[in-house]
Parts: sequence; C-alpha cells; structure tokens
Amino acid sequence: MVEWEQQAFLKDTHHKKNEEYFIEKYLKPLSKKNESFPIPNGDDSSLINFNSLISVDSFVEGQHFPKDLDPFFIGYRSIAVAASDILAMGAKPEGCLLSITINKPSDEWFEEFSNGINEFLEQHKMSLLGGDITKGNLNIGVTVVGKTNNKILKRDGAKVNENIFISGSLGRGYLGRLKYRELDTKLNHFLMPKIPIHDIDKIREVASSCIDVSDGFLIDLKRILISSKVGADIFINENFCTNGKEDLICGDDYVLCFTSNLDEKDLTKILPDAHYVGKIIKEQKLDVFDQKKNRLNFNKLGWDSFI
Amino acid sequence: MVEWEQQAFLKDTHHKKNEEYFIEKYLKPLSKKNESFPIPNGDDSSLINFNSLISVDSFVEGQHFPKDLDPFFIGYRSIAVAASDILAMGAKPEGCLLSITINKPSDEWFEEFSNGINEFLEQHKMSLLGGDITKGNLNIGVTVVGKTNNKILKRDGAKVNENIFISGSLGRGYLGRLKYRELDTKLNHFLMPKIPIHDIDKIREVASSCIDVSDGFLIDLKRILISSKVGADIFINENFCTNGKEDLICGDDYVLCFTSNLDEKDLTKILPDAHYVGKIIKEQKLDVFDQKKNRLNFNKLGWDSFI
Repeated sequence: MVEWEQQAFLKDTHHKKNEEYFIEKYLKPLSKKNESFPIPNGDDSSLINFNSLISVDSFVEGQHFPKDLDPFFIGYRSIAVAASDILAMGAKPEGCLLSITINKPSDEWFEEFSNGINEFLEQHKMSLLGGDITKGNLNIGVTVVGKTNNKILKRDGAKVNENIFISGSLGRGYLGRLKYRELDTKLNHFLMPKIPIHDIDKIREVASSCIDVSDGFLIDLKRILISSKVGADIFINENFCTNGKEDLICGDDYVLCFTSNLDEKDLTKILPDAHYVGKIIKEQKLDVFDQKKNRLNFNKLGWDSFI
Repeated sequence: MVEWEQQAFLKDTHHKKNEEYFIEKYLKPLSKKNESFPIPNGDDSSLINFNSLISVDSFVEGQHFPKDLDPFFIGYRSIAVAASDILAMGAKPEGCLLSITINKPSDEWFEEFSNGINEFLEQHKMSLLGGDITKGNLNIGVTVVGKTNNKILKRDGAKVNENIFISGSLGRGYLGRLKYRELDTKLNHFLMPKIPIHDIDKIREVASSCIDVSDGFLIDLKRILISSKVGADIFINENFCTNGKEDLICGDDYVLCFTSNLDEKDLTKILPDAHYVGKIIKEQKLDVFDQKKNRLNFNKLGWDSFI
C-alpha cells in the first residue's frame, strides 16, 4: 500500500504546494465551460470549437533536460513529449506552435534545434504552425493541436472491474536520461521518445479512460482514479518494470495508461506492445503488489517540479 | 525616408540576426500547408481545422515587464497582449492556455496573478482552458484561441491607393511602461492594455489587411507592406503621435493597423477612435512625413529582443 500521506493525496490534492495545488486553487476556478469549450479543463488537452484539441507544455533547461544537451534532442523531445498529451485524449497530433525563449540565439543552435523538430514532424506528418522567439533563459514552450475523432478519451471514464493497461514498458525514459551520453541516441527513449502514435486509433476504440505517463506511472494513474472516483490494484512484473519498482514513479515514460473492459489476451492481440498492469476497484485507494503478492510501499508517487 | 539599411530591410529580412532572421531561416521551412492548416504561417495567428485561430506569446521577466511588477499586471497584460494577435486576424479571442515557469511559486504570487488573469477574462468573456506550471525563471507562455468568422484578416491584403488606419493613438503603452509606478493603474496602457475587442467586428468588415502594433508601428506596418508587396507614405500628426515621432517605433501599443478602401471621413464615422495615418503606394518603400511635409529619418523601425 502506498503510504498514508499518499493515500490522503488520493482524496486531497491540496496538502502540498506543488504544481497541482496551484493549478487546482488558482487556475481551475478561471475555467468556464461554454459552447466553444465543452470540456472543463483538467484533462491532458482542451477541446475547442468542437473539433480541435490543444495542449501546452514548457521545457526548461536544467529542469527538463541537461544544460549540455545537443539542441537536436531538445527540439525532438520537446515536440514528442508535448504531442503525448494529444494522444492521451485519443487523437493524433497534427501541428504545433513554438515559443522559444533563448539568451544567445546562434545559427549553430537553431540549425540543430530545427533539425530535431523537423525529424519528429516528418516522422509523424505534423506541421509547424507558428510561434515566437524571445530573449531570456532557455525555455521551449510547445503548443500542440490535433483533430478529434468520433470518441474523445478522458480521465474520468474508468469503471470498476475494468483492466488497466500501459501501451509500452516503463523506465526507458529514466534510463535514457541517466545514460544520455552513452546509449545509442536513436534508441534512447529520453532523447527521442517513441510515443504510440501508430497505436492510437486502436487504443481509442478499446479504452474507457486514458492519460499519458509523464510524471510517473503511479501519480498519473492516480489522476485517472481521482477523476473516475475509483481505486486500483496494480500487479508489477519484470515485463513492464525492467528496472524494478522504481519504474512506477520515475516518469519520462510517455506511454499511455488506459482502462478497458477487454481482458489481457484480447487486448494484446490488438495491441502487442501493451502490458496488463492491474484492475480498477471500487474502493478509492491505490495498492501495488509484487509477484509474490507482497504489498509495496512508495515514498512518493512521481515527479513534481516543486517538491 | 527611413535609412537605407531599413529600406533594404523591406526586401531582405535576413541581414540582421534578430527574431525575424531565425524564424525565416529555421522555423518557417518546417511549416507545411495542408487540409487542417490552410494558411501558411507568418500571420499573427494560425488557422486550424477551418474554424479555430491560435497564437502563442511568451513574456519574460526583465524583458517584457520589470522585475518588481505586481503579479496582477503580469497576468492581465500577458493575456491582453497575446489576445491582440487574434484580433489582428479579425476575430475575437475566446479562450487561452497558460504555461507558467516560476522559481518560487507562492500563494501570494498566484493570488495576485490569477486575479489579473481573471479580470481580463471576465471583461472579455474569455475562459482559461488549461496549462501547466513548471520550475525556472519567470516566463509566462500564453496560447490564445479564437473562432473565425466569415472573413479572416491577413497581412497580405493591402492594395495600392488604400488608406492606412490605426484603431487608436500610439505611445500610450510606452509612456505607461516608463511611468508604471506613477500613473493610475487602471488608465495605464502598459499595465492594462485596452485592446480593441469591441471594435473588431466593424474593423473586420472594412479592412483589407491587418496587424497588431506590438513591436512598433513602423516595423509592424513593414510586415504588411512586405506581405502585400506594396509600400506606404505615412503622415504623422499629434492626434495619434502625442509624444512625437518616437511614438512610431516605441512599441507596446496593441492597437490594430489596417488598410481599407474607405476614406477618413467614412471610416471614422464607423470607428470614432481610429486615425488615418497614410496611404498605400505601389513602390515598395516606406516614407514618413511630418505636418510640414518634411521627410523624417529613423535609426530603427521598432523593438527587437536581440538587436
């Protein structure tokens, strides 16, 4: 079982002054549902004018990526990570806008950076739509847009007895960050995250709720649980936790976590890379079990800039 | 006449390594026109999925606003300034997303900041749609969205012999920034820019091209001239240049500059706050005359972060 404080966290997101605290207390009250914006904010992306999804993300030097990182990878991963929020709503990212803050722009920097951006956009048939450049400490703001389909995945759709799946294994981004100078860059999931764009049409059909795992599997799953007013039992194994239980909280995964009424066998027939990780339960708590059915403890559920 | 180098600038935006240089050389080539994004980037906002306009802006402490500025005004003016780009396309801003980078978030800061955001949103019937908070030097990223109407205003629609208008007088934002500790805050156009949302439906009907004046009247007008492949003669007077010719290049105005085939008398009947400022000419140059018909010189056309 996660520690008492973390269990309290399931019901009360206000006890620590983290990102969620400030968003819940000061920003969400400014959100008004209306005809153009039918979904209140709180999901990974916002729906506008009935057919567009939009999401924003910022990437700060020294915080989200190391200071000496090659600008190619700053570009590539910023778009990949931001695009992951559109996938989380069951849609494909189609375009993006960039807001680049940089102290000393140079041709060398922009050449590398724009090559990284271009590599991701070309791979995924996306377009750069606009943006601005301004002076200051390096900060890459990415706005991604996508077009909705017949169904939008949200965090509040998980139902009791449904199964919980992830679209790929955990811990690869964390490992890639630790070893970003050593690993083959093309295979490094931190430098060049492979987000499940090719699977999104299938995931959308079978999923009842969805989130992308960016801050850590447990903290992101918790967001589904709170929105859906349910709990979960998680059963870990080395197929998706290759580095052990720390993979549940390390973040930088950019896989999708989703719930479905399909069982493991039927789901992995459709989505061979996906893993069964647990079950939705009625009681609003979150327990994690190892393969010997021992309950595991965690000091934190994931990553937060401020704590 | 503006200096030779500036005249060259009318044809070649690549001679100085400023924001425009890096955007033109490295980012615009990544932009692809397609069904979802029918307008190539380069205008103030981008059109997505046929009916939504979107624009991004970043505001950096010490660069766009002084370090000691009350967070209320950081919030208010960030949204106002970003929303101005939606107006420039002839549409009303409807919602926004915030990407806040801050080193030490506190309740005091967020309370003031969110009050400023809320004041602008309430005044203009807009909604906050989402966003994120991350750790780093203060940087407010704003994404604004609007819905298109029957007509979209672009920079490339100005035609020879049309008249050039601005929706309000120049220099008020610059004055407000100089005296931000002294002036009544409600009247300070730097702290609380009054953008012409209430006039936008009328402006859309009469205008053939449009841009918002943010970096400086001359540099922003130049962007219309380049896009439309025309030139302009500007005739200044104290009605719209209350502090003299410097008002043409000071920036922070957040008025709209637009072209129309209406004459001054007919246009100001419809838009009493607007000023006639000059005429579109065929020759691709930009001249500014005072009331005695003397040609005026300028060392620069406006503000740029990097030069």
